[in-house]
Amino acid sequence: MIGVIGGMGPLATVDFMQKVIAATTAEHDEEHVPLLVSNDARIPRRPPAILNGNASPLPRLMEIRDRLIAAGAMALVMPCNTAHHWHADLARNCPVPFPSLIELASDAAAKRSSPGERIGVIATRATLFAGLFDQALKARGRSVLLPADPVMDTAILPSIAHVKAGRLAQAQALMQSAVQALLNQGANVVLLACTEAPIALAGAPDEIQVRCIDTTQVLALATVALWQAKRPTGAFDKALQSP
Amino acid sequence: MIGVIGGMGPLATVDFMQKVIAATTAEHDEEHVPLLVSNDARIPRRPPAILNGNASPLPRLMEIRDRLIAAGAMALVMPCNTAHHWHADLARNCPVPFPSLIELASDAAAKRSSPGERIGVIATRATLFAGLFDQALKARGRSVLLPADPVMDTAILPSIAHVKAGRLAQAQALMQSAVQALLNQGANVVLLACTEAPIALAGAPDEIQVRCIDTTQVLALATVALWQAKRPTGAFDKALQSP
Repeated sequence: MIGVIGGMGPLATVDFMQKVIAATTAEHDEEHVPLLVSNDARIPRRPPAILNGNASPLPRLMEIRDRLIAAGAMALVMPCNTAHHWHADLARNCPVPFPSLIELASDAAAKRSSPGERIGVIATRATLFAGLFDQALKARGRSVLLPADPVMDTAILPSIAHVKAGRLAQAQALMQSAVQALLNQGANVVLLACTEAPIALAGAPDEIQVRCIDTTQVLALATVALWQAKRPTGAFDKALQSP
Repeated sequence: MIGVIGGMGPLATVDFMQKVIAATTAEHDEEHVPLLVSNDARIPRRPPAILNGNASPLPRLMEIRDRLIAAGAMALVMPCNTAHHWHADLARNCPVPFPSLIELASDAAAKRSSPGERIGVIATRATLFAGLFDQALKARGRSVLLPADPVMDTAILPSIAHVKAGRLAQAQALMQSAVQALLNQGANVVLLACTEAPIALAGAPDEIQVRCIDTTQVLALATVALWQAKRPTGAFDKALQSP
């Protein structure tokens, strides 16, 4: 069973679960990747903790991590880009595998681009301020192309807020304009590095979608692979199947 | 935090979570109902256990129940109609509230109909065989209108199988024809008493949808109400909010 540190936000966690299910080849229920999901959003907000030094979410994230492990999680994932600011702390002394979304997404971006190229990044201001992707992409010979301030203020942040409040139609137009702005600035590929962004763009036209890398989808594929590698095989699973 | 005994099937659990989120008035992440979700489908299949006396899922369901309680669940819900055959066993000696989907859905059906009326029920053969809704609706002065055998075999069961395998387009036409058949037989209202049914019907026309009661939606609304009644209030929640 894979533990999911979710709730940041709740709809993004559901989107992640849906993508895990869609990425699994399964004819019957019991062939799906077993997940234990904490979709509990009572976690101090990540952006003010990074930007203003407000209360850190780390103690609470650590508590959720340990709760999932105690309940049987054999590996952990965390479908939230901004929260990866604390990933190194959470992964340290962690008794189970806990791959980083930032590393996985940067691998995916490197595969879709050439050395020296700039990768557009749609993320919260906090994720960008923390430099999560700067370092990871630099290590892969790529650099980050940031959204301009007005795009952040009038498109990305309001779109994320709309998703968190369930107003998907309003979210879409804003997020689409943000991707377009990065493409106009010269990005060939845009990392949707906030789990709300792919939800906002779900209905966007194909010509926008093909230029984007959905970090939630990247994490979903990695989660399926992790389970395929870690799953217990043999008698236990077979015993569950009715003839 | 509300514990969710899910995975029956995995997509139905995601649909339930989505409906909980949509039913919550929330502007920010931390106002959402906190859920701890076991989306682990490694549970002996319910229909063969009921119909053929195959291995019972009860020990495994009990294990998941206890795991969720140990991890902090203050109440439990189980978004699967068929599994409610074991609800009485699971709720017995359960230290936290665990409302029954069958009772909640039957209340909803009674509210939408008049005494003496027959309620169409779309469910697995096992749910119908176990008589889960017969008893609950009879107690409310209603009776069950069952799908005819050919409708069960050529529409309902194949549609459920399509949803479990992620083939939603194929699922829709079949499920819609099953609802139509029950309406033609004289039902005024049809209970979608299998968590795959509302997923299959998500794209169906309004004139079909308004005649249906989605038991997943009923459970989602009850879950939000349960949390509103049980949630800890005061300092803890306020402390999580950044100024």
